[in-house]
Amino acid sequence: MPKIVQITRRERFSAAHKLARPEWSDQKNYETFGKCSNPNWHGHNYVLWVTVKGTPEPMTGFVVDLSALGEVIKEEVIQHVDHKNLNADVIFTKDIMTSTENLAIAIWEQLEKPVKKLGAELHCVKISETENNYVEYHG
Amino acid sequence: MPKIVQITRRERFSAAHKLARPEWSDQKNYETFGKCSNPNWHGHNYVLWVTVKGTPEPMTGFVVDLSALGEVIKEEVIQHVDHKNLNADVIFTKDIMTSTENLAIAIWEQLEKPVKKLGAELHCVKISETENNYVEYHG
Amino acid sequence: MPKIVQITRRERFSAAHKLARPEWSDQKNYETFGKCSNPNWHGHNYVLWVTVKGTPEPMTGFVVDLSALGEVIKEEVIQHVDHKNLNADVIFTKDIMTSTENLAIAIWEQLEKPVKKLGAELHCVKISETENNYVEYHG
Amino acid sequence: MPKIVQITRRERFSAAHKLARPEWSDQKNYETFGKCSNPNWHGHNYVLWVTVKGTPEPMTGFVVDLSALGEVIKEEVIQHVDHKNLNADVIFTKDIMTSTENLAIAIWEQLEKPVKKLGAELHCVKISETENNYVEYHG
Amino acid sequence: MPKIVQITRRERFSAAHKLARPEWSDQKNYETFGKCSNPNWHGHNYVLWVTVKGTPEPMTGFVVDLSALGEVIKEEVIQHVDHKNLNADVIFTKDIMTSTENLAIAIWEQLEKPVKKLGAELHCVKISETENNYVEYHG
Amino acid sequence: MPKIVQITRRERFSAAHKLARPEWSDQKNYETFGKCSNPNWHGHNYVLWVTVKGTPEPMTGFVVDLSALGEVIKEEVIQHVDHKNLNADVIFTKDIMTSTENLAIAIWEQLEKPVKKLGAELHCVKISETENNYVEYHG
Repeated sequence: MPKIVQITRRERFSAAHKLARPEWSDQKNYETFGKCSNPNWHGHNYVLWVTVKGTPEPMTGFVVDLSALGEVIKEEVIQHVDHKNLNADVIFTKDIMTSTENLAIAIWEQLEKPVKKLGAELHCVKISETENNYVEYHG
Repeated sequence: MPKIVQITRRERFSAAHKLARPEWSDQKNYETFGKCSNPNWHGHNYVLWVTVKGTPEPMTGFVVDLSALGEVIKEEVIQHVDHKNLNADVIFTKDIMTSTENLAIAIWEQLEKPVKKLGAELHCVKISETENNYVEYHG
Repeated sequence: MPKIVQITRRERFSAAHKLARPEWSDQKNYETFGKCSNPNWHGHNYVLWVTVKGTPEPMTGFVVDLSALGEVIKEEVIQHVDHKNLNADVIFTKDIMTSTENLAIAIWEQLEKPVKKLGAELHCVKISETENNYVEYHG
Repeated sequence: MPKIVQITRRERFSAAHKLARPEWSDQKNYETFGKCSNPNWHGHNYVLWVTVKGTPEPMTGFVVDLSALGEVIKEEVIQHVDHKNLNADVIFTKDIMTSTENLAIAIWEQLEKPVKKLGAELHCVKISETENNYVEYHG
Repeated sequence: MPKIVQITRRERFSAAHKLARPEWSDQKNYETFGKCSNPNWHGHNYVLWVTVKGTPEPMTGFVVDLSALGEVIKEEVIQHVDHKNLNADVIFTKDIMTSTENLAIAIWEQLEKPVKKLGAELHCVKISETENNYVEYHG
Repeated sequence: MPKIVQITRRERFSAAHKLARPEWSDQKNYETFGKCSNPNWHGHNYVLWVTVKGTPEPMTGFVVDLSALGEVIKEEVIQHVDHKNLNADVIFTKDIMTSTENLAIAIWEQLEKPVKKLGAELHCVKISETENNYVEYHG
């Protein structure tokens, strides 16, 4: 029986965002999203953990080459979001509410196919926004 | 197909406790529980992670309002245990052995219904007692 | 001889900012500040450590009441910067380059007198912008 | 219905290793494993989390006695690998590629039966090699 | 000129305590010390960093043998306070207000001479009570 | 009066080493250095904090360009030690006892002049070998 192992790579990005619906008043946005609705933005050091799974390749012992996985995450996610404004600069997040939940789903969609090309399967995208909260999405 | 996302909030509390059965001798308690049986108590900075799951609400992108979840955890758990003695002061733990395993179960029972009222489902209660051990309970 | 003890309180805030001089072109700002000059902002989870020193008061054993110190830090610093834009929203940082160095100096100036009113002496303001860098200012 | 709880103990070990197949040239090893193939070895502070599961015993509230679990982990794993060379000194890893994936599998095999003797079931072996990656194996 | 290096060893202990003056009423203690005055105690995972300084010995490169320093800290401090009640069980803290400030001073006094016997000089005792505060004492 | 600010950059490297004098027997090395003398090496994830000080430059608010400081640290230190054997591969450590104390001094000597060229002054080199010990050298 093949031995399934999960391997996780951690990456980080710093970005600005806000939680506010443009069709709502500042007042309604504040009532719904609190200080996260600040019109002039705020920001976070996001931490991203990408977990893939598969069977270690016999010659290398690798489920996936971690450097290659790191390159994929940088190319598909980090370079687009790091030191950017998630609502204004990023193609795959600028039309969504940038809640951590939605970020996790959007990043999953960026990564699912490229991870498959590496010969592994995407298992979990985990993001923390502050040290007191994080989100996990398993597809 | 609805997208199920898990979101976790971390809270902390500092409490005293001991592991000892009142019907046992100090000697037997020491043999069973070691230094955790110290009659004059000891204590910990407990860290609590509460994970709930659900589908992000389309208008907010939230599985659950994290502030509301935080309020529930504070009201149902933290205000009862923080700076308290788990064996002497806390209604939902004073009649149990206050092992980390039992604390996780007791906190789950405190939170299951109030989390449902928030529109989400409780997925996991995780507690660490020291940096070298933690417990997870999934109901 | 009085025994001098230092006590430190950690606080956190999440804010947006950018590093860019308005009188410079985007090109020159990028050459000088790199990705930190992104016109649409980026942001961080800043961590702030405020260290004060003094002699423990005999009746309480406190150099300073930590709750009172926390209140002062929240009132003088955190409420102004948390979930704000340091360049656009904050009176004491909006006219400076918001480098971490300058933030530390600006926060020192906010805190020096209020800490003195608590009966202690401000010793160090330390801020980290990411997990890989921090700044310390001793006045 | 019995309440299943997972409990995790963290241990650490510092070891040397390299990733290189002896039948391959240094050149080919470098192309495959990069700097991890350095012929003179390199090393890590590995962190190991061992998760077991079971039902808390009514008298103690323990799924397993954590001290006994710690002893088992030290005897079966840590004393063999700590301050050792995984490729040269350790019976259960010296004939495998010492990728983190394979380490997790090898440690699982060391622990599965001894954990059963403690009355619990091994649930997960997690190892981190650096702060940016970790592996999980569930058997 | 001799090269002075500082070396720090981290140790941990879990203890119960309270902040309350016995000659004061519960009411006055609560007004002064807040929830830290809970009559039934609370507790913490204290972290202790002991820094010593000196010149590395030429044959070993050590300012001090870290294992020997660890033994001294365990013998003089940890075994007395770990899984104990600082106000009820510990000779060197039971007659003082167990503020973190006073703990640092008391631990300094326990360690100053034994560190000198190891051939080094005690430089700093640092203790954190929670992740949000710590105290440093330099003698 | 110029405002002196300290800024610290954290870097990491993974390396093998051992503590053993070649002119001593394995027995004597073991008695002196314990398990750190393992003839087949062991290794660590070292963490390095480099602190420099100076006055923020008025146009940028920088004591030093952190990217430039990072480049200097990589060029002078990290590329030489990361995924290497400190005793066998590294010009500036292979003829010394690779205690953490001596590593800090050796890294200081690598960095002192290059930091000066950046217009700042080296203030402290701090290295941790494990989560339980670290060394600081101020020149």
